[in-house]
Amino acid sequence: IPPSCIDSSTGATPSEEMNGNLMDFLDEPFPDVSTYEDFHTIDWLREKSRDTDRHRKITTKSKESYWELIKSLLDAWSGWVVMLLIGMLTGTLAGVIDLAVDWMTDLKEGVCLSAFYYSHEQCCWTSNETTFDDRDKCPQWQKWAELMTGHSEGAGAYVLNYFLYVLWALLFSFLAVSLVRVFAPYACGSGIPEIKTILSGFIIRGYLGKWTLLIKTVTLVLAVSSGLSLGKEGPLVHVACCCGNLFCSLFSKYSKNEGKRREVLSAAAAAGVSVAFGAPIGGVLFSLEEVSYYFPLKTLWRSFFAALVAAFTLRAINPFGNSRLVLFYVEYHTPWYMAELVPFILLGVFGGLWGTLFIRGNIAWCRRRKTTLLGKYPVLEVIVITGITAVLAFPNPYTRRSTSELISELFNDCGALESSQLCDYVNNPNMSRPVDDIPDRPAGPGVYSALWQLALALIFKIVITIFTFGMKIPSGLFIPSMAVGAIAGRIVGIAVEQMAYHHHDWIIFKNWCRPGADCVTPGLYAMVGAAACLGGVTRMTVSLVVIMFELTGGLEYIVPLMAAAVTSKWVADAFGKEGIYESHIQLNGYPYLDVRDEFTHRTLATDVMRPRRSEPPLAVLTQDSTTVEDVETLIKDTDYNGFPVVVSRESERLIGFVQRRELTVAIKTARQKQDGVVSSSVVYFTEDNPQVAEACDPQPLKLRRILNLSPFTVTDHTPMETVVDIFRKLGLRQCLVTRSGRLLGIITKKDVLRHMAQMMNQDPESIMFN
Amino acid sequence: IPPSCIDSSTGATPSEEMNGNLMDFLDEPFPDVSTYEDFHTIDWLREKSRDTDRHRKITTKSKESYWELIKSLLDAWSGWVVMLLIGMLTGTLAGVIDLAVDWMTDLKEGVCLSAFYYSHEQCCWTSNETTFDDRDKCPQWQKWAELMTGHSEGAGAYVLNYFLYVLWALLFSFLAVSLVRVFAPYACGSGIPEIKTILSGFIIRGYLGKWTLLIKTVTLVLAVSSGLSLGKEGPLVHVACCCGNLFCSLFSKYSKNEGKRREVLSAAAAAGVSVAFGAPIGGVLFSLEEVSYYFPLKTLWRSFFAALVAAFTLRAINPFGNSRLVLFYVEYHTPWYMAELVPFILLGVFGGLWGTLFIRGNIAWCRRRKTTLLGKYPVLEVIVITGITAVLAFPNPYTRRSTSELISELFNDCGALESSQLCDYVNNPNMSRPVDDIPDRPAGPGVYSALWQLALALIFKIVITIFTFGMKIPSGLFIPSMAVGAIAGRIVGIAVEQMAYHHHDWIIFKNWCRPGADCVTPGLYAMVGAAACLGGVTRMTVSLVVIMFELTGGLEYIVPLMAAAVTSKWVADAFGKEGIYESHIQLNGYPYLDVRDEFTHRTLATDVMRPRRSEPPLAVLTQDSTTVEDVETLIKDTDYNGFPVVVSRESERLIGFVQRRELTVAIKTARQKQDGVVSSSVVYFTEDNPQVAEACDPQPLKLRRILNLSPFTVTDHTPMETVVDIFRKLGLRQCLVTRSGRLLGIITKKDVLRHMAQMMNQDPESIMFN
Repeated sequence: IPPSCIDSSTGATPSEEMNGNLMDFLDEPFPDVSTYEDFHTIDWLREKSRDTDRHRKITTKSKESYWELIKSLLDAWSGWVVMLLIGMLTGTLAGVIDLAVDWMTDLKEGVCLSAFYYSHEQCCWTSNETTFDDRDKCPQWQKWAELMTGHSEGAGAYVLNYFLYVLWALLFSFLAVSLVRVFAPYACGSGIPEIKTILSGFIIRGYLGKWTLLIKTVTLVLAVSSGLSLGKEGPLVHVACCCGNLFCSLFSKYSKNEGKRREVLSAAAAAGVSVAFGAPIGGVLFSLEEVSYYFPLKTLWRSFFAALVAAFTLRAINPFGNSRLVLFYVEYHTPWYMAELVPFILLGVFGGLWGTLFIRGNIAWCRRRKTTLLGKYPVLEVIVITGITAVLAFPNPYTRRSTSELISELFNDCGALESSQLCDYVNNPNMSRPVDDIPDRPAGPGVYSALWQLALALIFKIVITIFTFGMKIPSGLFIPSMAVGAIAGRIVGIAVEQMAYHHHDWIIFKNWCRPGADCVTPGLYAMVGAAACLGGVTRMTVSLVVIMFELTGGLEYIVPLMAAAVTSKWVADAFGKEGIYESHIQLNGYPYLDVRDEFTHRTLATDVMRPRRSEPPLAVLTQDSTTVEDVETLIKDTDYNGFPVVVSRESERLIGFVQRRELTVAIKTARQKQDGVVSSSVVYFTEDNPQVAEACDPQPLKLRRILNLSPFTVTDHTPMETVVDIFRKLGLRQCLVTRSGRLLGIITKKDVLRHMAQMMNQDPESIMFN
Repeated sequence: IPPSCIDSSTGATPSEEMNGNLMDFLDEPFPDVSTYEDFHTIDWLREKSRDTDRHRKITTKSKESYWELIKSLLDAWSGWVVMLLIGMLTGTLAGVIDLAVDWMTDLKEGVCLSAFYYSHEQCCWTSNETTFDDRDKCPQWQKWAELMTGHSEGAGAYVLNYFLYVLWALLFSFLAVSLVRVFAPYACGSGIPEIKTILSGFIIRGYLGKWTLLIKTVTLVLAVSSGLSLGKEGPLVHVACCCGNLFCSLFSKYSKNEGKRREVLSAAAAAGVSVAFGAPIGGVLFSLEEVSYYFPLKTLWRSFFAALVAAFTLRAINPFGNSRLVLFYVEYHTPWYMAELVPFILLGVFGGLWGTLFIRGNIAWCRRRKTTLLGKYPVLEVIVITGITAVLAFPNPYTRRSTSELISELFNDCGALESSQLCDYVNNPNMSRPVDDIPDRPAGPGVYSALWQLALALIFKIVITIFTFGMKIPSGLFIPSMAVGAIAGRIVGIAVEQMAYHHHDWIIFKNWCRPGADCVTPGLYAMVGAAACLGGVTRMTVSLVVIMFELTGGLEYIVPLMAAAVTSKWVADAFGKEGIYESHIQLNGYPYLDVRDEFTHRTLATDVMRPRRSEPPLAVLTQDSTTVEDVETLIKDTDYNGFPVVVSRESERLIGFVQRRELTVAIKTARQKQDGVVSSSVVYFTEDNPQVAEACDPQPLKLRRILNLSPFTVTDHTPMETVVDIFRKLGLRQCLVTRSGRLLGIITKKDVLRHMAQMMNQDPESIMFN
């Protein structure tokens, strides 16, 4: 089952596509090391027991000499070393991305004369002749029209700036989509659905490769700078996981064990969110709640360490120039009041509705992309959407700037020195109060015009985001979702504030909003709205609230955030259980066994196992009566991953399971190296030495060492809910079905997934309230 | 296996003790409802499938009528309702406990004349004639000596106050231990080891009963007020879990299903920590990291909700009178510097050493209590320890006050208005700066005498806490551990501060500590030290840092806290893997299968299963050749929880497993109600109707409906690490062992635990680095 980024564009099968298109020069294949093929599922139990074996060997050896002891200590600490490296590289990359995005976003509008590689803000910082007030308008920074024609005002300059803005946007996005198409098709999208699938135990070779890392980092900068309605948060998680995979290859402990590798990747995902928002705890919780599949406590600690190192590295690079870890630092000084819970909950409802609309709209659009001609022209699609976005975004000051700047402004409380249009309140000249505690004031004309522009920006963002997410460029949806929520929240906040100011005698305002008091903080509403919308789309709750709380440092606002997040989840869940990532996983048909879905049907293992009644009997080997030729025929005729071994075809008593891959290699080796093994040799899986009846008989081939003597079995009467639970918790790949000791059939992970999908479609209501 | 609180005192077996001593008037027994006996392990898979059945029934019914639909909706929401109720009751109880402790702690020193039920602080608040400076010395508040003799100064007054302080302490602790002994022996200790065990699937009836709730709440107040070196945090978790259990009984969904009940209890534990520290997110993480066993995502959301409601309720009660959620609110204004990481890491090392010392000392003492005469006189022990504590604590102002007040003072940064001895710095009269940014100053004499007193307090706390934890009264160790760390941290902090002030030309201080700058915050060191010590004792990392971070609201200090927490964990782990709770679980021999222990030995299922080689063969039933009498004899002669059913004794092919309890009930009912069932009737477990050969034969008894057709099996060659993993993740009670379809033996959870303990003792180094 191929990832969406690939198959939809050409309709080719994954392996064709992989070989033809993916020029992953830097990634060598590891045919001998890795024991799983591409697009296959790993067996968690087996990986775990392999790691225990390895560990046992090291422990035994460590008693032999000091050198081995030191090696065993190094091995024990290698996990922390990997975390340190991941944290440092992720933090550095995030810093570089932030700096590059800043510069290139500003490049669309103008250039710094003193040094072309300065962003607007950096350019005017270094200029020391400007005062605090017009720090934005320093002479070193010139808009394109001013630079080219000498005029900074007038219709001509506006049109020229407009034209260049669109042109730059198109150039950036064209570069981004071309790079993705040519060099690393896996670099597209947010990556989180695929990472969820990989972490649940699926192999997608090259998805976390060095080449993908490089291209995704570069194209992410281009895509964000082009002004499209997308964010860098999801892709940063992908980038961090690529870093994790890169460092895994340094230690055989991780590179040779797919289970251990996934522990590192879980931690890397935490580091990714940590640098995306500057929220290390939120990152760990995000990895736990949203991304990871197997998350033991040891991984929790390591994730936390990686997240902290990453955040710390980012802080040392200091891309925002304010020594703050976080993207949107705000500090509010006023408490909130009980009555405000009503608008907060309303924002939660809005967030839930937005989540539903977005998921439905986006999935419908992506399905159309997969099935119609649209998918054939990904470059054109990106160009068109960028063109529309840029043309519509430029006239409105709230959409022209980068989305994170917009969110930052919406979150901010209006201080006394604020020059923003949103803070154009009518000041009472008699009032003299400290700068951080300004009472509620009537709105000035600037606020009213800002409200209109924000309303238009809201509609624009809602529509364009649905079409943007899922295009063939790196795109995250945290920032656009938050922007939608922040705009809605700020509008509601200003409305409540003005209502409270003008009607402070109303019974609901009477108790808490005396005239001259600072009782409503519109920025807080923006924050609550952002949390609600993000929650509606992703269905995070705890990690979401923690991220928002780390963003703002405001412990006092947990209750509003929580109220909005839970309301939004409830509302969105009422329309459909799945968040955007699960929806995309389902859309692309990844073999992902969601921990959250509860299986509540009455089916039994016997209903799911194969062979079905109409199918030929199960392909089995017997312990002492199959010839080499029989085995070779079986391998050639079937494509199963392995075969059960039974005592005899009559008794059907199961003794073990043998992997196809190991069987093939063992027979090949035996034929080459072992004398007397011919097609008619009998393959023995028994413990005792086979008795060769006559001298002329061919040499037997003993294969007990490749036989797995502890295959997992369930009885045919086991309820499927138990089987699903077992597959989920133990991470099985397949499970044999027996009845009173006789082998009846086999259930693979794909059988389970197929059965679950069938049952869902048949009876979707039964899983709605859980 | 009896809980420690009981067996050690008399040495009686648990059931004797239970019947004789535990007068749980309020708790009714539920013999019919609950299917597990006391001190037995639950079967998680079975509970889960029972809940799915129940849910399926409701879903099917809900389509029949509107009334059933409403009922099904109510059922779906009952989880949230339970959370709401738990949050509200836990918050209220925590508020009441805080208020009562405040009042009773002050009662040891004096009384409020205007209203005897006011604490010192409340008493002086209501007095409006006092100024801010001597708010502590309002005339309404009188010390005992002043009230009784009229003199507030002098040796006589001091001795009288001293005497009354000790007397009150003895009275409180005597009351506490007597109440525990007489009414609810389960109310003693911190409760967290037992709750961990219960959550992992063990039944201790009455441990979370209403009577325990009542007595634990009352005695907790008494124990804390008596001035013993213990905290209320652990017991609050127990109280919260009792609340959870109480509300479970309102809904059959939870009261009749031990698995679902444990989900509620996990959330209740989160609510408990949430109110203990005012840290809702930290509470959820504590429940996840430290307490819970089975923690699905749904429980994560619900826990968060319960924790928030609890915190919010507590805030509404406002016991600290400052509208803050948190116990120790501090706000620092200065950043920390890289070089400070060195003392922070040293504090981490101290925390790790303290953790090791405390765990070893406390376990050794508790073992002595269990095995020697000491355990026979719990009341005397409490009285003696209280006496020693009170006598030694009174002379030192830092131990005389309540431990949480002490921590609060140690955490605080010295502002300009601070009257504490710790803030007796020499002020530079020329300096005029804002109150919250005071530069480093030389220490005055008050600071030096405070340092001596703190050093004495440190030694006192270290020693006394080891003996206090584990006595027969409610006792938590968060607060004492934090106090030890906070004292050590503050001492280090002041040392660094003075060094930086006097030697600001040293190379390490040169870069960040110019004269006249506020560069070292001793309060921050106290906080880091507290985190390190708490981490050393409990081995929490993420939840610990989150709790500390919620306490202070300081995002900037995550790195110092994390550095200390991780160092302390590493140091403590080097001396022994187990935290204090796991050590107590092991000491008391609870059947707790720790998720964190990795099993790395080479043993196989066949080495662990019973019957061992020397033992009689496994007690099995056959599907169609056992008589009722045979079954009854088997039930009488053995005490197994259930019996495997095989096709015949010759083939030994397993067909199912039957519970002892259900078998007993079925035979009893059949003998009473079904005609013709006599001792010689044959019991049939087959699907087909048995053929009665002759008319004179007794009626057969068909028992297929009580046969579990999907018993869990593994092969005899399965590595024990896989078996341990299966038991842990699926929460099994027992597992059958087969070889090529033949039944060989059985492994129960207790066999697994016994085997693990054996292997640990034999080869303890092999699990040290993991």
